[in-house]
Amino acid sequence: MLNTVAIIGMGLLGGSLGKDLIARKLAARVIGIVRRPEAVQECLSAEAVHTATLDLSAIASADVVVLAAPVATIVRQMTDIAPYVRPDAVVTDMGSTKGAIVQAGESALGGRFVGGHPMAGSHKAGVSAARVNLFDGATWVFTPTERTDPKALEKAVGMASAVGARTVCLNVEDHDRIAASVSHMPHVVAAALTLAIDRLADGDSRFQDLAGGGLRDMTRLAASPAVLWRDILSANRENTITALSAFAEELTRAVEAMREDDDIESLFDRAAEARTHLVRE
Amino acid sequence: MLNTVAIIGMGLLGGSLGKDLIARKLAARVIGIVRRPEAVQECLSAEAVHTATLDLSAIASADVVVLAAPVATIVRQMTDIAPYVRPDAVVTDMGSTKGAIVQAGESALGGRFVGGHPMAGSHKAGVSAARVNLFDGATWVFTPTERTDPKALEKAVGMASAVGARTVCLNVEDHDRIAASVSHMPHVVAAALTLAIDRLADGDSRFQDLAGGGLRDMTRLAASPAVLWRDILSANRENTITALSAFAEELTRAVEAMREDDDIESLFDRAAEARTHLVRE
Repeated sequence: MLNTVAIIGMGLLGGSLGKDLIARKLAARVIGIVRRPEAVQECLSAEAVHTATLDLSAIASADVVVLAAPVATIVRQMTDIAPYVRPDAVVTDMGSTKGAIVQAGESALGGRFVGGHPMAGSHKAGVSAARVNLFDGATWVFTPTERTDPKALEKAVGMASAVGARTVCLNVEDHDRIAASVSHMPHVVAAALTLAIDRLADGDSRFQDLAGGGLRDMTRLAASPAVLWRDILSANRENTITALSAFAEELTRAVEAMREDDDIESLFDRAAEARTHLVRE
Repeated sequence: MLNTVAIIGMGLLGGSLGKDLIARKLAARVIGIVRRPEAVQECLSAEAVHTATLDLSAIASADVVVLAAPVATIVRQMTDIAPYVRPDAVVTDMGSTKGAIVQAGESALGGRFVGGHPMAGSHKAGVSAARVNLFDGATWVFTPTERTDPKALEKAVGMASAVGARTVCLNVEDHDRIAASVSHMPHVVAAALTLAIDRLADGDSRFQDLAGGGLRDMTRLAASPAVLWRDILSANRENTITALSAFAEELTRAVEAMREDDDIESLFDRAAEARTHLVRE
């Protein structure tokens, strides 16, 4: 049982964490720190907080502070929050990239900061899309370093486990490299695929008539919040470009196989086999 | 109400049609034509036929013949079935490409043949995956030509509507071009993406730990039956390669935008907007 948890940034992830902490009675008090005045009421209606405020100093009473804004905002917030964070508090975050965040977090807060990344989400955004059990069964990565206070890590991991997540520890570099492959690259692919088909369709509504469940799946990530993805792709640019290069190579091979009417069957056989190593269904 | 429907090739699509025709009492008799002896029993267990047989001549009693094998097999079967098809019967098919099939069909059967393509499916294959209502709400395309007997078209459209599909008529060329964009290209993209990530992972199971619902969606089509997709991509090669070129261009633009830290937000905004034109959610 935690005493006071402050969540800075009440979107899908922050909101869902707040709802879980309240619904599962894991924290005596959940405070949401928001930017827009209207968000105070939205957080209360969503039952994602006990109180919400625009005043950052409210985190002074928290034993756990969770940063849940877009990546670039989290980086900036580290120095903003440092004067208010209790010496014995734990600070963690929910950002999709860890390099810049962990650097800023340790620089401002030392061993009290532990980088975190719950692998849960949706193309829907905002506290209105938040839900209890979003993290149930999801992987929640933590990226401790040699500076991390072991007790801070323990507390952060404990909170993630308590809301149902499977916790995994990775070093920062491995996290960002792996997340580029399994999450950041697929978002770029979905966006480019959607834009390409839209261009090919050129307003012809018959494309929509023929689009089925496969295309719905393949384009869903393209509907992800643009600001979040601007930040993520900027923060994890090199890893994502490296992953996209490997993808472009595979795509070129596939087109060559098609041109030569060669080996398409084995390409799909290998892809189906590869998928069993990557995805749990 | 149809009298006797013969379905040649009892996989997911043929099997689901059979189950629908029986469950909805749309045909007095459904005959499945299969290749493997074991399939006779499988079709009966799935309640997808009244009788199943390996003997192609059984189609002689049918007023509707539906070809539901992989594309290249359908093309070959046109001449095989011609001697048995009743002069007043309607023949249609469920193949994902229409060019070669319609040419072969009209050449062997004349105006009795109407090309068809139900936009329904799954990465699961076989009559064991067949289900009632697979076509409910799905688009079922027909590709009549100037040779098509209007009564044959009417009967084929009537059957598709009766199992719940929304029917659309397209010319053969438009069908193959549009299907390349909204269905065939996305399958190649999914397969190449899966192979690229598998290569980047190089056996590291942490990639699977971090893979979430987004990657599951983006790789699902890679698990599609390899033989079907060999046939489809071979039959619709040029259109699919053209679509993939447009995709490769969008991908290059996205990578350039990332390199210059430019415009990623607007790229995702445009992709989200484009998706609303392509996909009904």
